[in-house]
Amino acid sequence: MANSRDDVLSTALGILRRYGLADLSMRRVAAELDVQPSALYWHFANKQALLTALADLVLAGVTPRSSRTRWDRQLERLAGDLRAALLAVTDGAELVSAGQAGGLSTAAIGGYLVEAARRGGLSERDAGAVRTAIWQLVIGLTIEQQTRAQMERLGAAGPSGRDFDREFADGLALVLDGARHRAQLRTD
Amino acid sequence: MANSRDDVLSTALGILRRYGLADLSMRRVAAELDVQPSALYWHFANKQALLTALADLVLAGVTPRSSRTRWDRQLERLAGDLRAALLAVTDGAELVSAGQAGGLSTAAIGGYLVEAARRGGLSERDAGAVRTAIWQLVIGLTIEQQTRAQMERLGAAGPSGRDFDREFADGLALVLDGARHRAQLRTD
Repeated sequence: MANSRDDVLSTALGILRRYGLADLSMRRVAAELDVQPSALYWHFANKQALLTALADLVLAGVTPRSSRTRWDRQLERLAGDLRAALLAVTDGAELVSAGQAGGLSTAAIGGYLVEAARRGGLSERDAGAVRTAIWQLVIGLTIEQQTRAQMERLGAAGPSGRDFDREFADGLALVLDGARHRAQLRTD
Repeated sequence: MANSRDDVLSTALGILRRYGLADLSMRRVAAELDVQPSALYWHFANKQALLTALADLVLAGVTPRSSRTRWDRQLERLAGDLRAALLAVTDGAELVSAGQAGGLSTAAIGGYLVEAARRGGLSERDAGAVRTAIWQLVIGLTIEQQTRAQMERLGAAGPSGRDFDREFADGLALVLDGARHRAQLRTD
């Protein structure tokens, strides 16, 4: 049976949405496509390559607003859009974290964050710090939230009572304060 | 064979150090202790309980310096000590993230961070934001670093060329700027 790279990706995404990362194997993707696992390796050299492509797919919609958007507002929107994209897929944050670790991701969000911070007048190094602090806030918190959600689905834990959205908003506001402070120092 | 809760924990920690989280099963811990898996459940109701106790053990040495330490320096030290503790164990960051998600951790580091920020004059809510931003920076970045290290061990990736220590230091400095800015606003 013929199947394209996109077939493989969308089947994998479907498994991820329904069952989560632990259940996403090359074998399972192949079974759903009704082909031998070996057929997948024509499109993806290994599972890591499939996961990275999947991570990029999850992040595909996260792009900057108009360049007329204030730089700090742009950072805020990118962070919010990134978080929403991760939350849209079971284990999205863990997937994207692993994709970044692999270093093969084509996702440009890190670059967009740096670009916005540079537009605010920050040095290259300070803009990198902004990217790190925002990226890891979103990834770290969302991994924790999605791990919790899985425990609740499995009946291993009840509702946490935590307001993850508020934790995110408060942490992000603090990081943006730090960024504006750096911008201020450069223009003083 | 008699074995104590501490025997179980130190055996589990040994497996974690040598092989990582994916290889840490109740079955394997029992095998190394030469007991039936059922014997472990006398000490830990389930694997999640074991992992949480293990996470707390990994974090046990992370405590505040003297209260005469400047509040922002205290935050910096706590963040550095947290990161060092996570890096000391294979998959330490993922373990601690899951422990926090479970909500059963007895580790007090979040409280120490809030306490230090409060001492700097921050409101309860701002101090919570400082805790969130620092905690997730450390956890998120260290998960990524340890995932990368595993890929390199498995030969799935070469050296990343990233300087994770510098990413950490730069991100932390930015968050601390945000914290000092908030402190300033309250004393103006």
